[in-house]
Amino acid sequence: MSEILDAIRSRRATKTFVRGHEISEADLGTILNAARHAPTAFNIQNWRFLVVRDEAVRDEISAVAWNQPQIKDCSALIVMCADIDAWKEDTRRYWKDAPEEMQQKYTGMIRGFYEGREQMQRDEGFRSAGMAAYAIMMAASALGYQTCPMDGFDFGKVAEVVRLPKHYEIAMFVAVGKGTGELPPHGGQIPDGDVIAYDRFA
Amino acid sequence: MSEILDAIRSRRATKTFVRGHEISEADLGTILNAARHAPTAFNIQNWRFLVVRDEAVRDEISAVAWNQPQIKDCSALIVMCADIDAWKEDTRRYWKDAPEEMQQKYTGMIRGFYEGREQMQRDEGFRSAGMAAYAIMMAASALGYQTCPMDGFDFGKVAEVVRLPKHYEIAMFVAVGKGTGELPPHGGQIPDGDVIAYDRFA
Repeated sequence: MSEILDAIRSRRATKTFVRGHEISEADLGTILNAARHAPTAFNIQNWRFLVVRDEAVRDEISAVAWNQPQIKDCSALIVMCADIDAWKEDTRRYWKDAPEEMQQKYTGMIRGFYEGREQMQRDEGFRSAGMAAYAIMMAASALGYQTCPMDGFDFGKVAEVVRLPKHYEIAMFVAVGKGTGELPPHGGQIPDGDVIAYDRFA
Repeated sequence: MSEILDAIRSRRATKTFVRGHEISEADLGTILNAARHAPTAFNIQNWRFLVVRDEAVRDEISAVAWNQPQIKDCSALIVMCADIDAWKEDTRRYWKDAPEEMQQKYTGMIRGFYEGREQMQRDEGFRSAGMAAYAIMMAASALGYQTCPMDGFDFGKVAEVVRLPKHYEIAMFVAVGKGTGELPPHGGQIPDGDVIAYDRFA
């Protein structure tokens, strides 16, 4: 079995972490680097990663997240955000390493694709953040950590706690830490026929 | 280097596939199974995967996707969709394997979390689809395929082509196939300081 497929299949949302376990700067750097390699449309790199290790900030977040234990007990709580305005901020920098004609082509395409499409701008943020969240979960797994993707919290109140910039949205959290091995029962899968279709919907 | 970290770091959006390469049912099954293992909030399994292999359907999609070559040349075009109503459809089935009290608890939480929150219902779809898209990219990589995540197409027209159900949204495509090895120049990364922050935003 490949390490990749094994990590995908054995991943579970871990809610019980070894409290007080400190993640090394090297491991955290590897995980954030993996997140940065997750794709974004037109390379707009619209994800933003807020790494919360400070206990006081964790306490404030926990209070507006149903006091779920993984908020305080994980080694790093990564608040996955999206910059909804990434498409209009100095877009040439997203193509700075490419030849001049590609820079021009993509900066034009970016404006044409997003301008005036507010729902698309927001959708792009959640799409990008979702992909990066999964990259974090995979990289953490490769380094021997467990993770918990989360969206059970008061988004508005967390935004206040972390002083979220106005043009950002919070997409979700990924809690990273050393799991205790304790896992709740599986919920179960709905049938393949309910989620997979071919060529066109019926 | 772990296989996982290598796959994360070496992944590139592949636009040039070996045309006519057929993906085996076994490989496609492994990839879709990986997607089904991607997490969803409250286990609502709100992603929907439409696998387009039929040439006629691909032609119609290509015509509303700027004729990008990967649409026709990949081995399987996976249209990543989200069922926006997943939170209200017989939610007990998402927890069917769990003890009765968990079933009751989660079905209540699901309704409480999504009811009346239309933007959250949609955001959930894009978040889930993003995570599943990355799972597909990783599983494909494990099996020796390359991939291209895409959102450069006319969402409304693709919805017509594939007869998208009314309560679904298209989130993106993932094209899966055998890459030719030809890759465009890198765009480049913006600085870490523009995307990573600690504890609270400044």
